[in-house]
Amino acid sequence: MRRIAFLLVAVATAASVIACMVPAFGQADENLAPVYLTKIPSGYRDWRLISVAHEEGNLNSFAAVLGNDVAIKAYREGTLPYPDGTIIAALHYGHVPSEENNKVFGREQSFVPGPPTNIQFMVKDSKKYAATGRWGFGHFNTDGKPGDEALLKTCFPCHAKASRDFVFTRYAP
Amino acid sequence: MRRIAFLLVAVATAASVIACMVPAFGQADENLAPVYLTKIPSGYRDWRLISVAHEEGNLNSFAAVLGNDVAIKAYREGTLPYPDGTIIAALHYGHVPSEENNKVFGREQSFVPGPPTNIQFMVKDSKKYAATGRWGFGHFNTDGKPGDEALLKTCFPCHAKASRDFVFTRYAP
Repeated sequence: MRRIAFLLVAVATAASVIACMVPAFGQADENLAPVYLTKIPSGYRDWRLISVAHEEGNLNSFAAVLGNDVAIKAYREGTLPYPDGTIIAALHYGHVPSEENNKVFGREQSFVPGPPTNIQFMVKDSKKYAATGRWGFGHFNTDGKPGDEALLKTCFPCHAKASRDFVFTRYAP
Repeated sequence: MRRIAFLLVAVATAASVIACMVPAFGQADENLAPVYLTKIPSGYRDWRLISVAHEEGNLNSFAAVLGNDVAIKAYREGTLPYPDGTIIAALHYGHVPSEENNKVFGREQSFVPGPPTNIQFMVKDSKKYAATGRWGFGHFNTDGKPGDEALLKTCFPCHAKASRDFVFTRYAP
């Protein structure tokens, strides 16, 4: 069950931008060990919108993807790879029907964010995260505590498949 | 068909925050005629996130709902009614599968914003929009042109049913 939960998080993660890392080819030395975020970047809830996403299936989630100023500038200018200082945040929520909206519509069609489920981050830092594609990955539960290493290790294999510098999310105009 | 399109827009509108107005009880005098937005509020794409939404059915849409500083402050402090100067923007997009994400997942589960479809606004101004609940409503097509009056008139009947000062969207933490 635990393993399934990890996989689900990894999938959620890939879908909505964010993930974690393992050393390239599993052969990183001491200086290139993967490093994960241990603190939530401050002020993220005031950052600007990159895009939104929705995962069906077991995840049944909404993501609001926000970026700090460096991220927004890079997205708008199409800069790849993303420069150092880029931070991308994926705020995840349940995908739940809105009773109020559906009553007005007279049918089941409207979905809104339910309770938050987690927040995930990608931080670009060429030196600090050299072992993991120059991205540091973070996952934080609703109590503010980071996900454990086993969880964080699941992210990189997904993000390595993204075609734009390990990032899945595109900019919504 | 045209009427159906109007209805759909009205429904979309209600679901994701925004709509238009008719004079209360249809008896407004000259000074209380409904007034709709004719220009897109500047800088809206840099505003902060209020929430996201998804409509199924014919709409098949994503909404990213953003607010100017007055709106964000009111939402965070739970201020009702919203103060003059509040502006809420709903950026609408198609709700489309992500081929890239689904290839990584190995199943059809990931949805991302497709092309933008319209942008809608609610502007709080007690004097200017006295005829319409103190809210001015706007709908802009992808070419930047406002929706016509017949369309705008469909919005108020929905928003009048919202329980929080004509606003459906709640704040996503």
